[in-house]
Amino acid sequence: MTVRLAVLGAGRIGQVHAQAIGAVPGAELVAVADAVEAAAQDLCERRGGTVRTIEQIEQAQDVNAVIICTPTDTHADLIERFVKAGKAVFCEKPVDLDVARARQVVDAVAAADGTLMVGFQRRFDPDFRALKAAIDAGRIGRVEMITLTSRDPGAPPADYISRSGGIFRDMTIHDFDVARWLLGEEVETVMAQASVLTDPAIGELGDYDSVNVILRTASGSQCTITNTRRASYGYDQRIEVHGALGTVAAMNHREANIELATAEGFTRPPLLNFFMSRYTAAYAAEIAAFVDAVRTGAPTPTTGEDGVRSLELAEASLRSVQTGRAVRLDAMPQAGA
Amino acid sequence: MTVRLAVLGAGRIGQVHAQAIGAVPGAELVAVADAVEAAAQDLCERRGGTVRTIEQIEQAQDVNAVIICTPTDTHADLIERFVKAGKAVFCEKPVDLDVARARQVVDAVAAADGTLMVGFQRRFDPDFRALKAAIDAGRIGRVEMITLTSRDPGAPPADYISRSGGIFRDMTIHDFDVARWLLGEEVETVMAQASVLTDPAIGELGDYDSVNVILRTASGSQCTITNTRRASYGYDQRIEVHGALGTVAAMNHREANIELATAEGFTRPPLLNFFMSRYTAAYAAEIAAFVDAVRTGAPTPTTGEDGVRSLELAEASLRSVQTGRAVRLDAMPQAGA
Amino acid sequence: MTVRLAVLGAGRIGQVHAQAIGAVPGAELVAVADAVEAAAQDLCERRGGTVRTIEQIEQAQDVNAVIICTPTDTHADLIERFVKAGKAVFCEKPVDLDVARARQVVDAVAAADGTLMVGFQRRFDPDFRALKAAIDAGRIGRVEMITLTSRDPGAPPADYISRSGGIFRDMTIHDFDVARWLLGEEVETVMAQASVLTDPAIGELGDYDSVNVILRTASGSQCTITNTRRASYGYDQRIEVHGALGTVAAMNHREANIELATAEGFTRPPLLNFFMSRYTAAYAAEIAAFVDAVRTGAPTPTTGEDGVRSLELAEASLRSVQTGRAVRLDAMPQAGA
Amino acid sequence: MTVRLAVLGAGRIGQVHAQAIGAVPGAELVAVADAVEAAAQDLCERRGGTVRTIEQIEQAQDVNAVIICTPTDTHADLIERFVKAGKAVFCEKPVDLDVARARQVVDAVAAADGTLMVGFQRRFDPDFRALKAAIDAGRIGRVEMITLTSRDPGAPPADYISRSGGIFRDMTIHDFDVARWLLGEEVETVMAQASVLTDPAIGELGDYDSVNVILRTASGSQCTITNTRRASYGYDQRIEVHGALGTVAAMNHREANIELATAEGFTRPPLLNFFMSRYTAAYAAEIAAFVDAVRTGAPTPTTGEDGVRSLELAEASLRSVQTGRAVRLDAMPQAGA
Repeated sequence: MTVRLAVLGAGRIGQVHAQAIGAVPGAELVAVADAVEAAAQDLCERRGGTVRTIEQIEQAQDVNAVIICTPTDTHADLIERFVKAGKAVFCEKPVDLDVARARQVVDAVAAADGTLMVGFQRRFDPDFRALKAAIDAGRIGRVEMITLTSRDPGAPPADYISRSGGIFRDMTIHDFDVARWLLGEEVETVMAQASVLTDPAIGELGDYDSVNVILRTASGSQCTITNTRRASYGYDQRIEVHGALGTVAAMNHREANIELATAEGFTRPPLLNFFMSRYTAAYAAEIAAFVDAVRTGAPTPTTGEDGVRSLELAEASLRSVQTGRAVRLDAMPQAGA
Repeated sequence: MTVRLAVLGAGRIGQVHAQAIGAVPGAELVAVADAVEAAAQDLCERRGGTVRTIEQIEQAQDVNAVIICTPTDTHADLIERFVKAGKAVFCEKPVDLDVARARQVVDAVAAADGTLMVGFQRRFDPDFRALKAAIDAGRIGRVEMITLTSRDPGAPPADYISRSGGIFRDMTIHDFDVARWLLGEEVETVMAQASVLTDPAIGELGDYDSVNVILRTASGSQCTITNTRRASYGYDQRIEVHGALGTVAAMNHREANIELATAEGFTRPPLLNFFMSRYTAAYAAEIAAFVDAVRTGAPTPTTGEDGVRSLELAEASLRSVQTGRAVRLDAMPQAGA
Repeated sequence: MTVRLAVLGAGRIGQVHAQAIGAVPGAELVAVADAVEAAAQDLCERRGGTVRTIEQIEQAQDVNAVIICTPTDTHADLIERFVKAGKAVFCEKPVDLDVARARQVVDAVAAADGTLMVGFQRRFDPDFRALKAAIDAGRIGRVEMITLTSRDPGAPPADYISRSGGIFRDMTIHDFDVARWLLGEEVETVMAQASVLTDPAIGELGDYDSVNVILRTASGSQCTITNTRRASYGYDQRIEVHGALGTVAAMNHREANIELATAEGFTRPPLLNFFMSRYTAAYAAEIAAFVDAVRTGAPTPTTGEDGVRSLELAEASLRSVQTGRAVRLDAMPQAGA
Repeated sequence: MTVRLAVLGAGRIGQVHAQAIGAVPGAELVAVADAVEAAAQDLCERRGGTVRTIEQIEQAQDVNAVIICTPTDTHADLIERFVKAGKAVFCEKPVDLDVARARQVVDAVAAADGTLMVGFQRRFDPDFRALKAAIDAGRIGRVEMITLTSRDPGAPPADYISRSGGIFRDMTIHDFDVARWLLGEEVETVMAQASVLTDPAIGELGDYDSVNVILRTASGSQCTITNTRRASYGYDQRIEVHGALGTVAAMNHREANIELATAEGFTRPPLLNFFMSRYTAAYAAEIAAFVDAVRTGAPTPTTGEDGVRSLELAEASLRSVQTGRAVRLDAMPQAGA
């Protein structure tokens, strides 16, 4: 069976996914929708498929699955519509900025016995998978302490920040997902600190640019997350997992694998500067995994539930910053919603 | 002027300091005291000086300075006695496990216009000094986010843990001092998490073996500290300082600087496994700095105040763990004592 | 203008080039030929184009350029035929195992004003290009001493060795080309040593498996090349260029960018184990460069002359091994042929 | 038994050895001789012992062993005199610039059943010993191909070059010794190339500043040596040994173990810039090994024979450069002397 896909939203990430579809044997891009028709047209010309409206795709007999890359505030509704239409759905994170609404969507997907995969591409990065494989093979024993370091080269535009839900919901959310994936146990308590250090404008928007979070599970495992919106040397993405028998770490990717030695010292190039070049292989593997789940009927490797849980961690972090208290996840109102 | 020193306590660290004295031009070891006379005798034979009692050293005309390496519960009294006797004092951390008592001692030293240097050897490590020099030279701009990772190869004996004041006071205290040194600003708020992951016996003693701390200054700079009592690969001591213009990091020291490549991969030896071999150069530089301050009359590079402040951070961390709250340093009772 | 290509030879490297064509905007695979028709058919199904004979391609109006990936002993004739037919030619190295014959072909291409690019993919590796860019930017000053280290994971089959012309012509030839590229000056003298260390069967075929070469230019710059047919840890490909102001080095690529720390030490995965995975990006860039030259009419970045020169260095090395003498390139009979 | 030593020559290297004696338990510096008495006096004041003449030391009953650090042209005579006087002798390399004379001295030492250790400190470097231990433990299987890279930060003064015997005898000689130590087999054939690239003045003195050597043993193992007199980034000292099962490498030592990341990339400090700081530990271990051999009567770890063999390799290299031929060691006239 060929999996026939439609891409909703022909922007940056929609283009990445459309390209990924082309590289997956047994997958075919059949339709692209975008509010700006020219953008959809352009993508079809480069990657195949025909321009259609959301409605046409909803009713199409020749579409098995959709990839939602539209603005965040459309995610929840689109997921519900396409699951109801019997399509398997891949949706970029987050399901919704509001945890209660996101939970509602996930419940609806479950009730309809639908398929929903939420886009957390880091789980598909080849290095991070090798790190995870080492853990699963017992190389470091029981996981005890995780350190996640994520730094963006620069802050997104003010416009994006004002709609993103803030640093915990748009940036740290990826680390929350990685933490859950690696801890192998749900988080019980969250503590967080947040500052505005790189640009006062970010503070004026009610957001932060520099945060630290400590997650703690019931068994006492901990994970620290360090995020900043500015790193002069590129896009910094590191994982270190410490266990009873050892530690495994995934290192950064740099522009070129060379080193220059001069009187000033030994210099290697900066890191790749953009999340899309850093995670090129991860995005491709993520779509391949989605296609594979659709074809075989197996569960998707990430789910709507993963999307909700990471969102809850974002909300708990924000509450911890605001209250100066450790926040228990089971005391979050939405958890009971 | 030759600085003539006495070492009080001929144990492990006393021996290290006695050896360091021998390598400092213009310094001379003239006396050693120890409850076990044979230990003092043995040290004198190897490093010079004569065996004397505490009282004899107190009254000695030929002793300018003392190095206190006796058990922790004797520190406060000995500092007061020797400052009163007009000797410059170097004392291993902590001044006292109790912050109020430590503060009292520091006040007494100030009142007597005495000299007290507290032993935080990491500030004298050549790599850490090179890191600090890069910061001071403006290479990374304003310091924003610090990450300190300290892991011991294994836990100390139960006996030690029960007297040490716990992990925050005996282990993290070094990281607190490094944080204060590098932040260049006092800490305002502390958040901490703590677990028992490596050995339940540690929990039964009321202590923890795995902790994470977030420090925050008034200007919003933050520092995370990760400590564990067990690391299979050796004594792990890393500093990373992130600033507006870049990041500077100090790396670990390993047993040998070689790499083996086989079908299993590329392997480098474990880290140095013992704090004394890791910090050999730091201990020597620390004593040299003390001697230098005594000779020139300049302020010592670390002070009794540094000892008290780090102790306050330890106490605040413990309180944060116990209350699940961010603890403000200015709300600590002892801070006002 | 779209460059329309035919691939001659649908084996391993033919498949790599066919895939590369698909990724170059403005290039199209229109035909594949192979002695085994099923192989050609299979490649067309995956990458496009139709199965044709050599003769059909020679006469085709819709083919601008051919990529020759057939066995070595067919290269010389095919180049001559297709240049005569007015097609631009990309040919895998070597032009011919015999220098005189290779020189004849290159002369024929020149006489016909034809286009011939010889496949030395390393020049297109992104890391090596970054290294070359650093040199060209003057970062290390005048190039003085180059060290090339190339080790294969394992020896090719006996069958291949007996037809390949030996280690200097099938393996070192890539290093000769890299040396010429980086020295920026022709080689004047060659010294070489060769041994059979990994498998006596290689010696029985009259070949070597472990060689060292020293190249020297008229101005005194030198380049050493170390080759072995066996490396337990993967495919080892390193360049180091030492100059008046510094040194620049290109490092190896490994299976994953992770590190595991345990009581045994710090271990990173082995190197990529296969030249095609190591040089994936290089092969793609090489074909893109060929297409670009065909489209614009610009000279190809590598030429038939490059192929002949590297072959001469191989022959000179072999002679140096056999005679125990430094061999001058201008004293080689074929140089004057 | 305490080994009582005299140091002949109170220059740079004499001072290093005198300091090393002080750190060896059971060793005592009892006398120092130097043509400039003030230099000897100064050294005694810092390290102990009394100033004496060569003759006084020769006849002294309280001296077991001498360390010869005088100018090269005095080595041969002093070795003969002190061996005749019944003292164990440690002599800095070379025994003599002339192989025949050096061989004569070694024969004389053997005839007198004397003790002569020649100073090749690299064998005592802790990293190189760890590398050797890995080889001896069978970690890389049979040794096949060695790569030695030695680059000095800058050329010695013209004055030194004119008396040193040239780059092969004063610089490469250390690599020759390391090669012999690691190959575990004598060298059969030498090929070498040499250029003047850093300073024409060196060429005017009849010397070279940039050389490559290939050594080959009877069993076919090979070793390449790369030397240059100038490296902008410090004192470059690397060993890589490739074997049937893997490769082991010893890396460089740098000024500090830190890394700075900025928009320009990731920079680590230059290498230690001076052979004495790079090999501090090696010099100390070398003297300890000499004292140990004297005390126990065991053979010294390096011998006069080692000194002669390395000198022969230097001479063979020079001949190879001059003749453009591979030079067989057994065809060297002095080998039969």
